[in-house]
Amino acid sequence: MIPTQQDILAASDRVRPYVHRTPVLTSTLLNELSGSQLYFKCENFQKMGAFKMRGAVNAIQQLSEVQKQAGVVTHSSGNFAQAVSLAARILGVKAYIVMPNNAPSVKKAAVKDYGGIITECAPTLEAREATSQQIVQETGATFLHPSNDLNVILGNATATAELLKDYSDLDYVFAPIGGGGLIAGTALSAHHFAERCQVIGGEPLEADDAFRSLQSGIIETNNTTATIADGLRTQLGDINFPIIKALVPEIIRVEEDEIVEAMRLIWERLKIVIEPSSAVPVAALLREKHRFQNKKIGIIVSGGNIDVENLPFVKTK
Amino acid sequence: MIPTQQDILAASDRVRPYVHRTPVLTSTLLNELSGSQLYFKCENFQKMGAFKMRGAVNAIQQLSEVQKQAGVVTHSSGNFAQAVSLAARILGVKAYIVMPNNAPSVKKAAVKDYGGIITECAPTLEAREATSQQIVQETGATFLHPSNDLNVILGNATATAELLKDYSDLDYVFAPIGGGGLIAGTALSAHHFAERCQVIGGEPLEADDAFRSLQSGIIETNNTTATIADGLRTQLGDINFPIIKALVPEIIRVEEDEIVEAMRLIWERLKIVIEPSSAVPVAALLREKHRFQNKKIGIIVSGGNIDVENLPFVKTK
Repeated sequence: MIPTQQDILAASDRVRPYVHRTPVLTSTLLNELSGSQLYFKCENFQKMGAFKMRGAVNAIQQLSEVQKQAGVVTHSSGNFAQAVSLAARILGVKAYIVMPNNAPSVKKAAVKDYGGIITECAPTLEAREATSQQIVQETGATFLHPSNDLNVILGNATATAELLKDYSDLDYVFAPIGGGGLIAGTALSAHHFAERCQVIGGEPLEADDAFRSLQSGIIETNNTTATIADGLRTQLGDINFPIIKALVPEIIRVEEDEIVEAMRLIWERLKIVIEPSSAVPVAALLREKHRFQNKKIGIIVSGGNIDVENLPFVKTK
Repeated sequence: MIPTQQDILAASDRVRPYVHRTPVLTSTLLNELSGSQLYFKCENFQKMGAFKMRGAVNAIQQLSEVQKQAGVVTHSSGNFAQAVSLAARILGVKAYIVMPNNAPSVKKAAVKDYGGIITECAPTLEAREATSQQIVQETGATFLHPSNDLNVILGNATATAELLKDYSDLDYVFAPIGGGGLIAGTALSAHHFAERCQVIGGEPLEADDAFRSLQSGIIETNNTTATIADGLRTQLGDINFPIIKALVPEIIRVEEDEIVEAMRLIWERLKIVIEPSSAVPVAALLREKHRFQNKKIGIIVSGGNIDVENLPFVKTK
C-alpha cells in the first residue's frame, strides 16, 4: 500500500526537466530563535510559485497518449488550478479549469496566463463537482484531484527527496497539512530517503480535520474553515490518509495569530514572500520549540502566491 | 589608481568565512517581461540582510591589531550600522554606532541586537560627524565610511565576483547607485572577471547626483533626496567616483512610481522581500528594456531590510 522508494525516484526523473530544483535557505537568527537548525526548502520559488507544480507535472505525464489528447480537468481556485494549467501547457495537453464565479479576478487571470480553459460555476462544492463531471463527459478529459491522487502525492514527494539529498541527516521535516497531498509525499520521502527523520504536520486549529482524524483513526471533516491559511481548508482523502496514518506520528495545531506572526517572521528574517499556509509549519515548530532543541529540521515552504496588496500584518494607513 | 584583480581575490578570501555565498535566482516570467535573461544576485539573503556586510567584514579585517583593539565607529541609521555591528562582533572588535535621535526604534534595536554600542545625536550630518569624531578622539576607534572607503568597495566587489563565477558570460550587470560604494565594487569585478560585461547604474531621479556627476565629470550634490529608495539618498565620494567615472558608462534614472512598481513585481514574481533601493536597477532596466533585448543581465539585489508593516504598494484597508 505504501509506495516504494523506486516510485519516488521514478517521479523525480519524470518531473526533473520541468520543475526547479528549489534552493534551501538558512538563517542564523531563526536558528537562534527556535533553538534548532532550520533548513527551508523554498517551493515558493517553484514554477508558478508552489510545490503543486510537482504533482501536476507527474500526474499528467502518467496519462496515456489517448488520455493526454483529451486533456485534463480540475476544480480549484488556488494553486492547483495554476499548476495544472502550466504543467499541461508545458506537456502539450489541454487543461479545463472549473472555478467558482466569485473567484478573485487575479486568480482567473493567472490561470488564463498559463493557458488554462476556465469554466465558471456557482461557488459550491456540488456545483464544482457537477461542472467537472460534465466536462469529463463532454470532452473525455481526465479529472485530476489536487491532493487525493497517488501520482500527485508522488510528485509532491520529490521536494523532500531533493531536500534529503542536500541534507541527509535531518531529524524532522515539518510540512503544512490541508488536503493531505503534500504531507503524504513528504512522509514517503522521509521514510525512504532518511535514516531516522520524522515528519510533523502543522495545521490551523480552525481547520483541524487531520489532527482529529489521526486521533480517531478515520477521516474527520471540518465544521468550520475560518483560517487565514486558505490552502489548508481542504479535507483529507482516502488515498493520502492511509499514508499519513502510517508515517506521520504527530500534527501540531496552531492559532491564527501564531500563523500571522510566523509569516511575518519569515518575511522579515528570511526575506522571502510566503503565503499564510507556508507559515503554519513554522508556527507549529515555534509553539513546541522546547521539544526540538538542537535538532536539524527541514521546513517545506509550500508556496508564495499571495496578494501583496492585502497582508495580514500591515497596519491601516 | 584602479584596484587590481588580485585585490578583489584577496578580499574574497578574506570575507568568505564570514558571509553567505548568496544564491542567484531566475524567473521565466521576468525574462519574458524584460525580453532579456535576468540573473538576480540575492544580497537580501546576505547576513544582516544586505551587501553591506561584505564591505564591513573586509574593512575591519584590514585594520592592525592595535586598531582592532580600539574598535571602529561609523554614523548611519541604515544597513551599514547593522553591518559594522555584526561584522565587528564576529571579528571580536567593538563597534560604536552614531545614530540620529529620531532613528526608528526598530533600527536601533537591530544595531543593539548585533552588539553595536549606540551614541545618539541630533539628526543632522554635522552632529553625526562631530559625534563620530569625538568618539574617535576619546577611544582611538577607527572611523569607517559606508561607501567612500577602498576596503569597503573591495568587499562589495566580492558579490559580483561570485556572480561572474557562476555566470561568466553576462553582457551587463545593473546595480543601484547611492553613495557609490556598491557600484564601484561591481564595476571593478566586471572589469577584472568578465570579457565584455558593462555595469549600468540605476538611480532615482529624485537623488540623481551620480547621473549629473558622470555628465559634468565632477562630484555633484543632491539638492533634494525625496526618494522612497532611502539607501540611495547619499552622495558620491572622492574615492569611489574615479572608479565609477572610469568603469561605469551609463546611469539610468527612474521615477518614484517606477521604483514602487518594480519592487512590487519582484515581490510578486520572484517571491523575495527587497527594499526600495534594490528595485531601482530593475526599474532602470524595464524603463530602457528595448535596448537590452536578448542580453544576459545580472542584477545586484542589494538588500531586504524593510518595515513589512509599511509597504508602498499596500492599499489603505
